[in-house]
Amino acid sequence: MSNSIRAAIVGASGYSGEELVRLLLRHSSCEISVITSRQYDGKGIEEVFPRFAGSGLKFSAPDVKKIADTCQVAFLALPHGLAAEFAIPLMKSGVKVIDISADFRLKSEAKYKKYYKEDHPSPELLKEAVYGQPERYREKIKNAKLIACAGCYPTSIILATAPLLANKLVSPENIIVSSMSGVSGAGRKVDLPYIFPECNESLRAYSPVGHRHLPEIEQELAFAAGVNEIAMNFVPHLVPVNRGINSTIFLNPLPGFSVEKVAEAYAQAYANERFVRVLPKGKLPDTKCVTMTNTCEIGFAFDEHTGRLIVLSAIDNVTKGASGQAVQCMNILFGFKETDGLL
Amino acid sequence: MSNSIRAAIVGASGYSGEELVRLLLRHSSCEISVITSRQYDGKGIEEVFPRFAGSGLKFSAPDVKKIADTCQVAFLALPHGLAAEFAIPLMKSGVKVIDISADFRLKSEAKYKKYYKEDHPSPELLKEAVYGQPERYREKIKNAKLIACAGCYPTSIILATAPLLANKLVSPENIIVSSMSGVSGAGRKVDLPYIFPECNESLRAYSPVGHRHLPEIEQELAFAAGVNEIAMNFVPHLVPVNRGINSTIFLNPLPGFSVEKVAEAYAQAYANERFVRVLPKGKLPDTKCVTMTNTCEIGFAFDEHTGRLIVLSAIDNVTKGASGQAVQCMNILFGFKETDGLL
Amino acid sequence: MSNSIRAAIVGASGYSGEELVRLLLRHSSCEISVITSRQYDGKGIEEVFPRFAGSGLKFSAPDVKKIADTCQVAFLALPHGLAAEFAIPLMKSGVKVIDISADFRLKSEAKYKKYYKEDHPSPELLKEAVYGQPERYREKIKNAKLIACAGCYPTSIILATAPLLANKLVSPENIIVSSMSGVSGAGRKVDLPYIFPECNESLRAYSPVGHRHLPEIEQELAFAAGVNEIAMNFVPHLVPVNRGINSTIFLNPLPGFSVEKVAEAYAQAYANERFVRVLPKGKLPDTKCVTMTNTCEIGFAFDEHTGRLIVLSAIDNVTKGASGQAVQCMNILFGFKETDGLL
Amino acid sequence: MSNSIRAAIVGASGYSGEELVRLLLRHSSCEISVITSRQYDGKGIEEVFPRFAGSGLKFSAPDVKKIADTCQVAFLALPHGLAAEFAIPLMKSGVKVIDISADFRLKSEAKYKKYYKEDHPSPELLKEAVYGQPERYREKIKNAKLIACAGCYPTSIILATAPLLANKLVSPENIIVSSMSGVSGAGRKVDLPYIFPECNESLRAYSPVGHRHLPEIEQELAFAAGVNEIAMNFVPHLVPVNRGINSTIFLNPLPGFSVEKVAEAYAQAYANERFVRVLPKGKLPDTKCVTMTNTCEIGFAFDEHTGRLIVLSAIDNVTKGASGQAVQCMNILFGFKETDGLL
Repeated sequence: MSNSIRAAIVGASGYSGEELVRLLLRHSSCEISVITSRQYDGKGIEEVFPRFAGSGLKFSAPDVKKIADTCQVAFLALPHGLAAEFAIPLMKSGVKVIDISADFRLKSEAKYKKYYKEDHPSPELLKEAVYGQPERYREKIKNAKLIACAGCYPTSIILATAPLLANKLVSPENIIVSSMSGVSGAGRKVDLPYIFPECNESLRAYSPVGHRHLPEIEQELAFAAGVNEIAMNFVPHLVPVNRGINSTIFLNPLPGFSVEKVAEAYAQAYANERFVRVLPKGKLPDTKCVTMTNTCEIGFAFDEHTGRLIVLSAIDNVTKGASGQAVQCMNILFGFKETDGLL
Repeated sequence: MSNSIRAAIVGASGYSGEELVRLLLRHSSCEISVITSRQYDGKGIEEVFPRFAGSGLKFSAPDVKKIADTCQVAFLALPHGLAAEFAIPLMKSGVKVIDISADFRLKSEAKYKKYYKEDHPSPELLKEAVYGQPERYREKIKNAKLIACAGCYPTSIILATAPLLANKLVSPENIIVSSMSGVSGAGRKVDLPYIFPECNESLRAYSPVGHRHLPEIEQELAFAAGVNEIAMNFVPHLVPVNRGINSTIFLNPLPGFSVEKVAEAYAQAYANERFVRVLPKGKLPDTKCVTMTNTCEIGFAFDEHTGRLIVLSAIDNVTKGASGQAVQCMNILFGFKETDGLL
Repeated sequence: MSNSIRAAIVGASGYSGEELVRLLLRHSSCEISVITSRQYDGKGIEEVFPRFAGSGLKFSAPDVKKIADTCQVAFLALPHGLAAEFAIPLMKSGVKVIDISADFRLKSEAKYKKYYKEDHPSPELLKEAVYGQPERYREKIKNAKLIACAGCYPTSIILATAPLLANKLVSPENIIVSSMSGVSGAGRKVDLPYIFPECNESLRAYSPVGHRHLPEIEQELAFAAGVNEIAMNFVPHLVPVNRGINSTIFLNPLPGFSVEKVAEAYAQAYANERFVRVLPKGKLPDTKCVTMTNTCEIGFAFDEHTGRLIVLSAIDNVTKGASGQAVQCMNILFGFKETDGLL
Repeated sequence: MSNSIRAAIVGASGYSGEELVRLLLRHSSCEISVITSRQYDGKGIEEVFPRFAGSGLKFSAPDVKKIADTCQVAFLALPHGLAAEFAIPLMKSGVKVIDISADFRLKSEAKYKKYYKEDHPSPELLKEAVYGQPERYREKIKNAKLIACAGCYPTSIILATAPLLANKLVSPENIIVSSMSGVSGAGRKVDLPYIFPECNESLRAYSPVGHRHLPEIEQELAFAAGVNEIAMNFVPHLVPVNRGINSTIFLNPLPGFSVEKVAEAYAQAYANERFVRVLPKGKLPDTKCVTMTNTCEIGFAFDEHTGRLIVLSAIDNVTKGASGQAVQCMNILFGFKETDGLL
């Protein structure tokens, strides 16, 4: 195909990498050209992910020059802190970079340092990066050189909350969120808390204060609300499913609020969005309706008893919360049909 | 044993009934004398619960006279609305009644009507009943004729919150709770939303407004706080485990609050309680540490960022949230060792 | 598209129906025109399967005339015994019928009666029907009027065993199979044994003698072996996953057997088959590598100790074991690319 | 209590160790005196297993002298190959040793070497050790110095098969077993194949040829049958439950076989056994009926079609398959009630 591009996936042996391969193999205009993994260098992808046998893909050690020579876009699916090493030279070579990690999502160096306990390796890129959430930044994504894809918890929370803040229907104060995530959210990580018997039949909160996704959520909700700062609560929980995030968000209405205006605000924001499904009154999100899809489900209920609005959302953390959103960003960036590879 | 008593379990074919059998078979001073089930009348218990083969227990249709003639205590493990029919005549016959349903938990007829959409069948019993939560009502339980065992979600929330309200460390206003429950919480109910493929790999909220456990929680927290009314948010979620409830509770400190005082309030309330485990700083509850036990785990974290206290708790909904607590109440009522049958 | 066809899905509210919708919505040349359900007549598909919101599909009561007027193909995804009622008039009207039930899979009326305890309603169709397993009957499928798609357990067992029987490498005697299936295999059935707490943390065999899939497996293996009859053991087990069948097959080598010849027989049968993946030596099938795909994984190990060959296979029971295979058959029948809708 | 003993648990930080603690804390006559773990030396048990908070138990590095000075019995719950180092000096000091590992189960040095690829470190102990399966070796256990507890798969298979072999009802030839195990069977092992997303929604066979439990099973079945050698097939599968083993056993009747005689053989063997439950005709074992208990469930069905007998059994791999059986052995060894700690 004349418009077709070639992609590299840097760090392709984790769950985000696997999902990128799954989605891009189905894409009409993007061919996977390079997949990297130091650990599996030289091995066929079927050694790690048997379901991709026959694709002909083979892991190689990451090599910026090789990627720059052959690819138009590089997806970075690396652990925290490693993206800059690849992003900087790739961008210099004209390769579009779509980063799935949290490395470039924060605009504030200070917040990065506070939450990650170290200086950011390339603060200039924090300004350069476009936040990869198509429903809110589609125009900027079209011309981005570096896209910092929205995180999994943040995606579930921001999509559900931003339109209400933007329309001044709810207060940016006293926002409280309780979320649950499947275990793939911890990555393909070999650590005692994540072995099957420690997760199955287990429900547990973690990082109830100061989770690293918090400043990202606060940043984007502050942008949506048009305020300088938001300070909110966010408590994530680990639950025994493979995929899925469910967020329950407690919001305080502002004067002028009505349930009808909530519905209108969502309709205005998402009526034309293929990957956001606002549920009718009385229906609530369920992760099983979104797993293996790029869709975010949003539902809500107003509690007259307390005067509080409860908003609920569900996504697949690996798709809309990571690799699916990344492909959606790529589609926008290169002028492909936004749903390509994602239906 | 000279002090030994005989018990009836009315409605013994559900999960609460099964758990009562499991616990009482291990009890040193209480013998199961009658187990009732209309559906399984005449069948051996092993037809329904093979693990109790050899116990010699056989289901019979419920027969108040037979129970009154042979038993000192009756556990009612019936669906909502059916308890009064048995409680009234049994109490008249001098049988102590321990009800696991929600029928007698509310003190207010009006609230019952609001949440259950019908008049209470025996409002005089609402006053008679003692709320079956040993840590808070041990003295009253000792002399009760009718015990309305605390509900599953309520137990997880009240045990974690009441001491802080009683000590005026947190405000009775703006309490927000997000809970998760295993599917046994829905009972042994044959309904489409509860079949395996609809629950497994599914995370979903339900009844985010007006759940029937809400007035019970509000009632008990208001008692603890010494206020007339509490209006709070409570959103339950169904998650794919068999057993376990995890509650995450957002509380607003009052003047004089300190983390140390929180620890002290819990220590004061629970230092001598065998079935409440307050976790040390930095540790968070996990349902897998309490399943198949009568223990409630409580942890907490103060968020300086928002000034809010986050309290977390975990129980087994079938044990501490139902049948275990019922046995604990029986032990108190009859002067048995409080842990008998429960370790 | 000029070659595009329209399809009806009769009985679209179960898991096979849901999977047909998922696959056909992605198909380039087949449009879903009618979805039927008596129970949900008049409701949008999103009422039952929220993930298909936006598709515009609406359930209607089954109406043969309407289907005949608008569709070129009808998928029947009905409970056992109901297919003939639709198949006969639809075939008369020239609509191709692809049945996912077991109604037309057996060639022998007598065996049908033995296993289903009733006379077959339309024995003439037993001869007419082509067994819907593309890897073995591709040519016949091309001209079929009625396709009886291979069952889920049978697919996993026959694909793994037939090439070895056909090549006289293993004996048609003393075949023993032990299989496991996810709970979706029981259908979207509301029955006590299938509620979550009865299946989760449960491993159990069922129908260890005389399972209804047995005569189908024996029939096809006898055809492959070129013998009149096969009598074998097949024990299915229910295990707590949503999707997936894993079969473990014990076979006795014939003179001339060698491991190399086993590999050759598979290569000969499947080297050009996109949906069968024969694993290299030392690798074993895992259902998680095939779920949500139309692929069958096959592995094997020879036990020198007993002289027996152990063959293992894995499929997704809803895809390759039902709806995916049905779509594959449709693709062959209408001359579409065989992988359309399935990648 | 005058008869009370003190026990050491060597290697107490794994799942077998955890289960020993759970069971012994409930024992009327055995007090846990020492729990060892190099990794957690000096830490309270609640750091690893919060559910044992309040027990006062603390891990120490293993110290043979300390154990010998204070304990009458030592349970060894160590990884393969490490038991001899502790067993020899402890036995010399008069401490009874109950080993949960596979180190002393085989009678044949040659078989040990074949399956473990190394010489046995203390072959004299292979003769000394009594195989820890109370239903078959109760008298020998009473006087044992070293008990090699039966393995998990072996327990499920031998209990179900031995009485039929001993009564010459089935042939010792052509025995075929397919088993499934929960993930706790792999131990508390931190390895990629055992993390939650790799196990959940996964069904897979492993070691289909030459599993290390095979010679143990063959040895004991040969003893039961009174033959020199048995060569059989055994294929284990890993399935997503925490606990439980389900074994499906295919047996060939000998002349004189009848279904009635099978029932009689089981009755004769197990009528007085508290921890074996032979199911009535038509009922099949289910692991959920035995988890968290020391019971083995056995069921069977005769297939007239093939003339083969199918026997099915279920146990909890951690209880009857390991620590529960170990406690049962201890009870026999010290003359305690055999069910103490186990009900």
